[in-house]
Amino acid sequence: MQERLEKLHAYMESRKLNALIITHPKNVYYFTGFLTEPHERFMGLVLVRGESPFLFVPLLDGEKAREACPAIMIYTHDDSQDALTVLQHLLPTPLSHIGVEKNHLTAKTYEALVSIVQATEAVDVGELLCNIRVAKDASEIATIKRAIWVMEESLRRTLPLISVGMTELDVVAELEYQMKKLKAQGPSFSTIVLAGEKAALPHGDPGDRVIAAGEVLLIDAGVYVDGYVSDLTRTFAVGQLGAELLDMYDTVLQANLAGIQAVRPGALIAEVDLAARAVIGDRGYGEFFINRVGHGIGLELHEAPYVHSQAAGELIPGMVFTIEPGIYDTKIGGIRIEDNVLVTKDGVEVLTSFPKELQIIG
Amino acid sequence: MQERLEKLHAYMESRKLNALIITHPKNVYYFTGFLTEPHERFMGLVLVRGESPFLFVPLLDGEKAREACPAIMIYTHDDSQDALTVLQHLLPTPLSHIGVEKNHLTAKTYEALVSIVQATEAVDVGELLCNIRVAKDASEIATIKRAIWVMEESLRRTLPLISVGMTELDVVAELEYQMKKLKAQGPSFSTIVLAGEKAALPHGDPGDRVIAAGEVLLIDAGVYVDGYVSDLTRTFAVGQLGAELLDMYDTVLQANLAGIQAVRPGALIAEVDLAARAVIGDRGYGEFFINRVGHGIGLELHEAPYVHSQAAGELIPGMVFTIEPGIYDTKIGGIRIEDNVLVTKDGVEVLTSFPKELQIIG
Repeated sequence: MQERLEKLHAYMESRKLNALIITHPKNVYYFTGFLTEPHERFMGLVLVRGESPFLFVPLLDGEKAREACPAIMIYTHDDSQDALTVLQHLLPTPLSHIGVEKNHLTAKTYEALVSIVQATEAVDVGELLCNIRVAKDASEIATIKRAIWVMEESLRRTLPLISVGMTELDVVAELEYQMKKLKAQGPSFSTIVLAGEKAALPHGDPGDRVIAAGEVLLIDAGVYVDGYVSDLTRTFAVGQLGAELLDMYDTVLQANLAGIQAVRPGALIAEVDLAARAVIGDRGYGEFFINRVGHGIGLELHEAPYVHSQAAGELIPGMVFTIEPGIYDTKIGGIRIEDNVLVTKDGVEVLTSFPKELQIIG
Repeated sequence: MQERLEKLHAYMESRKLNALIITHPKNVYYFTGFLTEPHERFMGLVLVRGESPFLFVPLLDGEKAREACPAIMIYTHDDSQDALTVLQHLLPTPLSHIGVEKNHLTAKTYEALVSIVQATEAVDVGELLCNIRVAKDASEIATIKRAIWVMEESLRRTLPLISVGMTELDVVAELEYQMKKLKAQGPSFSTIVLAGEKAALPHGDPGDRVIAAGEVLLIDAGVYVDGYVSDLTRTFAVGQLGAELLDMYDTVLQANLAGIQAVRPGALIAEVDLAARAVIGDRGYGEFFINRVGHGIGLELHEAPYVHSQAAGELIPGMVFTIEPGIYDTKIGGIRIEDNVLVTKDGVEVLTSFPKELQIIG
């Protein structure tokens, strides 16, 4: 933590900022070890140049914050108070130059905050924090690996329970039950289980659709472990699939492998997307691959790097992201195969190990 | 939906706005019937004065949007495009006066949006939408009742499964499994199951803490059904409790009843908090009741009205909110009893019906 905070202090010095106010709960966790979801209540890690940092949290989170980070001063505000007015009294105003996350603060809170500290300039530190977090350290990678293990083990335990006649929601219930029994903090997003033609909706909602033979079953799920996410997709065959679905499956699998093949430090981020996209395009399914090939994962489900065809920048060691090409044909079904990969010093480590050959279930 | 959209059109006329851009996913759902979680991708319902409204969504949500609202025009942007640049081409710029949700748009997106439409004034319509949504109509109340039924039935089915020696996370797993079997879309927040002294953390995280006899077990959970939430807390006795915990329990129960008693149309919102708070204060536990007595529920877990001692305004028919007094003593444990209530034309309807007398479990 101290090393991470040093980076913020150095930035404040270099940019001559009087204060940094970090409000994104995941960033607060990254720099303090205190993780909470304050909902609409205001929470911030406050660094004033030349002073000790402090955490400013809702009263009902005060005890939890003190337990999580005993070394840092905790101030609180209660529900009957205006949080920013309380904060104002804790700050040596005016603070003419401050740094805030303009990609997290709402426009309303941003304007109020700038006003109470009497800032003449508010620098957006969103990208800075993004860049600090984008290369994962060894302990973060170890935690992501545990989140992946819980997800893969949950899926392994669920597969034998799936049978024709169950609904999509039945499978969600079984899968999330296994996650919790394996001590996940929870799903990292709303678990997606889609059968047949519904699998062609990349963000479809599981429902009463009954699982039938001769169709695909797409499962896209992840868990939180110690604040870090995993994000895995596999598509299964319920009984025998027809030739068209088999060809789609093989195409997506080859695209997934081509994407992984493109990962190495120094490669352009866009190349990973283009490599997978070329496979799908060459086999005639280009119009059915309607999203980017991947996104970074870590404390957030979607974070840098965003891996699409127009992405700027290069891959660097420590980046962890998904590779998830897909073919979505609303008439026949959808296929997606998603792995989580790590950029290493000399190449790539595929962190997910769940088999990718087409498995027949049910 | 049409009736709801009329309110927006009327507002645009009255405020002479050229356009309204609604971006909060729950507000988009309220006005269109299309519910999605776009994560970091841009999504908006766009109303330009004198033109037909349209939905602007990520490409991978396009098909789902068309299915959900066939009567509205859908435009999409893909992951390799800058969403706001695409939006610009769909709009008759300049739009000098626009309305946006400044309590939802990030400062960064807000600035970019104002710039691309060349607005000279951007009115915050957050409060307007809040006021439109605060009084629930009959169909919304019916949906909330279903969300409550699913939550209460899940809890009823889970209680007999709880035994001494299980961990908090084991109970979370059982409870969320029942939610899913009862067709909840998912928990409406991270399910809270806390044993013993951990129950004194209002936002504590369930973990490996083992459930033991002579302690409390606090369960705070809710579900989503068709986009609407429920939010229920009950505190149970694991075996026999000591005199202090029993007195705390009775105090919280009386505070809960006093809060409910204060609910009627025309009453001050703050009165509800004060009525419950007075009971807890009178019995000597004032310092241990560290949060507001309640918050509105609906499409969001926390929405207007926020029921605290300094709240402005009066209760009106159709408001639905929680009443959840608590006593949190980190040495001995925490008690919270939370109901969901509806302000009716002539009083109050308690929507939750799970028994509140102290139940012994395990």
